[in-house]
Amino acid sequence: MPRVSTDQLAARRQQILNGARTCFARYGYEGATVRRLEQTTGLSRGAIFHYFRDKEALFLALAEQDARRMADVVAEQGLVQVMRELLVSGTDGETGPAAEDRSWLGTRLEVSRRLRTDPEFRDRWRAHSAALTTATRNRLERQAAAGALRDDVPVPVLAQYLELVLEGLVSHLAMGLPADELDGVLDLVEHAVRRP
Amino acid sequence: MPRVSTDQLAARRQQILNGARTCFARYGYEGATVRRLEQTTGLSRGAIFHYFRDKEALFLALAEQDARRMADVVAEQGLVQVMRELLVSGTDGETGPAAEDRSWLGTRLEVSRRLRTDPEFRDRWRAHSAALTTATRNRLERQAAAGALRDDVPVPVLAQYLELVLEGLVSHLAMGLPADELDGVLDLVEHAVRRP
Repeated sequence: MPRVSTDQLAARRQQILNGARTCFARYGYEGATVRRLEQTTGLSRGAIFHYFRDKEALFLALAEQDARRMADVVAEQGLVQVMRELLVSGTDGETGPAAEDRSWLGTRLEVSRRLRTDPEFRDRWRAHSAALTTATRNRLERQAAAGALRDDVPVPVLAQYLELVLEGLVSHLAMGLPADELDGVLDLVEHAVRRP
Repeated sequence: MPRVSTDQLAARRQQILNGARTCFARYGYEGATVRRLEQTTGLSRGAIFHYFRDKEALFLALAEQDARRMADVVAEQGLVQVMRELLVSGTDGETGPAAEDRSWLGTRLEVSRRLRTDPEFRDRWRAHSAALTTATRNRLERQAAAGALRDDVPVPVLAQYLELVLEGLVSHLAMGLPADELDGVLDLVEHAVRRP
């Protein structure tokens, strides 16, 4: 077996994650069979399960990566900006990064479903979702300190509000429902947390 | 075979729907096997499929009934009130009507998932979801005419906003996430659509 560099290992791992994301989004968790994972990753089952113990581990790694990326954007630009980007990607054409973002939507919905039906998964997921909540609260605290937010509603309520809207947006886009009014909706959401 | 009245037929049909709601919520659509449907409805497969052609028809009838009930509450009390009731039921104990409402949450999530993965289902569902949207818009139009709503945002945007928050709330509660701040969040949502 040829020796491979750390970079090559990381690239291969990412190749598997990208293919798996498409697969889970298209077929759902149960429908993402090993054969389909082979097709969407372009790799053999041997290669895939060399990097991830089983389908569960692969799915969790994927969900974790998505949650981390999202927390990064929130820390820099805020949760409303995450939603605005989701909106653009959710209504774009079928190719390019937009299509990949849409499959991220599918992952989110699968996470929602498994959280409901699988208590073990719920425990393992809690740490990931906490990262997003923390990023959101920290950013809001900074904005509050700078006097940019309304001060008649506690920051934890504002944070929860934004997360709830995000959750609704994810569902809405993932279901392929019309997005005509959503720009206006996000303006409304943004104004609702700001100082009047 | 004894003759049964129309009332008895309707009662039996409702018994099946109630048991099926619990079953779909607990096991998901795929996991709701015929055997499990027999257990949760307390009826034989023969009886169940006398009333509903197949599992698909049963699920659609259930989703339709839920959507209709919800549209009725919206028409009378508005979408924020629907959310407030959801909140109470989502955080109550394990028995009674509250537990039944929570299984309604599960049905909603299953609908979301099937909308994403099943284009035929999406077409059939469109009519039901339109009923809720129409009820929401009509109520908002009446409130706008009475001068109760903010007038700087078009009514369709306000309607979409409320539906998005509802979708987020359903996901949130169905995932069993903490509900501590949600009363405050709904106050914020309600104020965001009203005349200041």
